[in-house]
Amino acid sequence: MSDNSISDIENLIALMAKLPGMGPRSARRAVLHLIRKRGLLLTPLADSMSQVAATARECLNCGNVGTSDICGICSDEARGNGEICVVETVSDLWAMERAAVFKGRYHVLGGTLSALDAVGPEDLGIPRLVDRVVGESVREVILALNATVDGQTTAHYIADQLEGQVQLTSLAQGVPIGGELDYLDDGTITAALKARKTF
Amino acid sequence: MSDNSISDIENLIALMAKLPGMGPRSARRAVLHLIRKRGLLLTPLADSMSQVAATARECLNCGNVGTSDICGICSDEARGNGEICVVETVSDLWAMERAAVFKGRYHVLGGTLSALDAVGPEDLGIPRLVDRVVGESVREVILALNATVDGQTTAHYIADQLEGQVQLTSLAQGVPIGGELDYLDDGTITAALKARKTF
Repeated sequence: MSDNSISDIENLIALMAKLPGMGPRSARRAVLHLIRKRGLLLTPLADSMSQVAATARECLNCGNVGTSDICGICSDEARGNGEICVVETVSDLWAMERAAVFKGRYHVLGGTLSALDAVGPEDLGIPRLVDRVVGESVREVILALNATVDGQTTAHYIADQLEGQVQLTSLAQGVPIGGELDYLDDGTITAALKARKTF
Repeated sequence: MSDNSISDIENLIALMAKLPGMGPRSARRAVLHLIRKRGLLLTPLADSMSQVAATARECLNCGNVGTSDICGICSDEARGNGEICVVETVSDLWAMERAAVFKGRYHVLGGTLSALDAVGPEDLGIPRLVDRVVGESVREVILALNATVDGQTTAHYIADQLEGQVQLTSLAQGVPIGGELDYLDDGTITAALKARKTF
């Protein structure tokens, strides 16, 4: 590995090791795999990365990741149905889209409010959300933030900002589909029992 | 995700998910990380991959991965000291090189003999190893195969082929540095006790 001629490979390993969930060991394994599957995987991956590096950008309206200044969801007239779903991250938006049940638009915060990390409302685009509620004549804002302390704190802050201007809802809490009571935490069981409904 | 304009990103996720140790979920996470760190990580990674795809090749002599037909180790005269270390994979070669204690050349088999998977001596370049022993006037062949059943079966086969032509050695077996007896398997303790030496 100290040899000059393979410093390209060393360089690739160092870069791969920076990916989330990868370390030096798994990066070496991945790079050897890539070199073995050069035509099938390495070249297409390099091309795809260049492509994404050139075209990917954040939607100026909602914060989603796409290939234009306004993402496909925001530019789709059919999705301007007066509903905005507020999520923490683009991954959360993708998770919602996989469920394919929500037909409105999104607002991606990019995190949660945090005094410690100096993340304020402006960093999360909350003023922009307030503007959108008026501009896009929104009827309902669905607060689909994570059921964590930080997520719920942020949800309460947003609710305060939008109070009286729009209907505010949040995702239902309860037993997940396929969930077994024995494996659920006390908080989930408590929430599910409190929100019980007629069978 | 059903939108046409972000199919570049979907394509990149699908390719990343093919890496060893990655699944759809970790691939999505990695791709979002790459998009956030576009200038710092995504572009350099794409360039590095293109570079490696264009230049990486297997050494025709030893099977190591490098950027020329004969790798840096094989073309280094100083390493032609009459010792060849036989390893299963390029990762094993890299592990040996990190230890920086072996000053000879290598022979990478690329696997182990396996009747089930139809891997024969030719697939592992064993005839080429026999040729090298004569051609490079080798004194000693170190069988540094993994201490598994397959590895040791392959080591015995190679030893049979080279019997009488060269000195054959294998790595010592015993307690790893920093190892605690309580955590070692019976086989290792047995090997270490049998090979005990004067203190």
